[in-house]
Amino acid sequence: MQIDKLQKQVAFIKEIDKVKYILRQSKLFNSDRRENDAEHSWHLAVMAIVLAEHSDKPIDLLKVLKMLLIHDIVEIDAGDTFVYDTTKDHNNTEEELAAAQRIFGILPEEQAEELITLWEEFEAAETNEAKFAKSMDRFEPLLQSATNNGGTWVEHDVPYHKVYNVNKAIKEGSSTIWNYAEGLLNESVEKGFLKKHTPV
Amino acid sequence: MQIDKLQKQVAFIKEIDKVKYILRQSKLFNSDRRENDAEHSWHLAVMAIVLAEHSDKPIDLLKVLKMLLIHDIVEIDAGDTFVYDTTKDHNNTEEELAAAQRIFGILPEEQAEELITLWEEFEAAETNEAKFAKSMDRFEPLLQSATNNGGTWVEHDVPYHKVYNVNKAIKEGSSTIWNYAEGLLNESVEKGFLKKHTPV
Repeated sequence: MQIDKLQKQVAFIKEIDKVKYILRQSKLFNSDRRENDAEHSWHLAVMAIVLAEHSDKPIDLLKVLKMLLIHDIVEIDAGDTFVYDTTKDHNNTEEELAAAQRIFGILPEEQAEELITLWEEFEAAETNEAKFAKSMDRFEPLLQSATNNGGTWVEHDVPYHKVYNVNKAIKEGSSTIWNYAEGLLNESVEKGFLKKHTPV
Repeated sequence: MQIDKLQKQVAFIKEIDKVKYILRQSKLFNSDRRENDAEHSWHLAVMAIVLAEHSDKPIDLLKVLKMLLIHDIVEIDAGDTFVYDTTKDHNNTEEELAAAQRIFGILPEEQAEELITLWEEFEAAETNEAKFAKSMDRFEPLLQSATNNGGTWVEHDVPYHKVYNVNKAIKEGSSTIWNYAEGLLNESVEKGFLKKHTPV
């Protein structure tokens, strides 16, 4: 029985190796190399550990870490969608749900259900844990672009108001981090990385 | 006060981006591309989530995840040492301790102390959590090599007894996983990936 479960878990562990091949738009902090989903998920999890004290609401950190570590596994089937993409909805598409069911479904049944439910909770962004996890998912690429000469903002010519609207989700998790993030956005406008008004 | 702490934490978050550039000897499960420490740490953390039930002793999973997510950060300064390297001790060298003090020392003092202590606990491999975390750190490259045509075992011509001795640490965390791992080692001998006796 234990061995039967372990074999399914090992099959899942092998399958999720593919997360390491999924490239995001975001670049690393100090280079032009794009980040993959495994690196991104690791970074968010460490961020949650060191930033947990800034959550406005009490959070179960173990739950936050589980969410962050698994949140992009669905992209094995559904692919990464750039957060500023205007043609495709990033969140909770049918494609992503089918991916969650197939990939987490490799695990023993009870465990599969637990992780699908956790992924859905993250996507819904309603609980304290999901809000804080989402704030990490926004804050990392914001830090990357602000540090790396404007990063994807400059590359894709994303205007300030779009960046602001996407990133204000940080406020739902932590007002302290959001205040800091707003400061970085303003600095990025001053440095010319972000444009407040598109020239006519 | 909160902002002062946050600035130190952000400096740490930027510093650890370097973990993504540290290449391990181990290759991914299905390719010749070598794995970096961030990808490795992410994979171990997800493994711990799905395999926790196989721990022989009760474990605090949050503590295990924290250990796994930070365990290779010291390699930013100390570099990765191949586990089958015969010229350099892999564990808890002075170089690694200095690295832990410098890198975790970027964080606010109390948090720095917490993470250094956690890293030392992992290295000492004495508590239930450290033993289980170490078993994940062994099991992942074993699975990789067994899946990927012998991987680093073949590449570096590592004999069976060395692989066995390094990997039996898995048994300290989970007898179920160790039984399974022993089966994989035997299969690898049958497939010719591992040699029991070096030819004269």
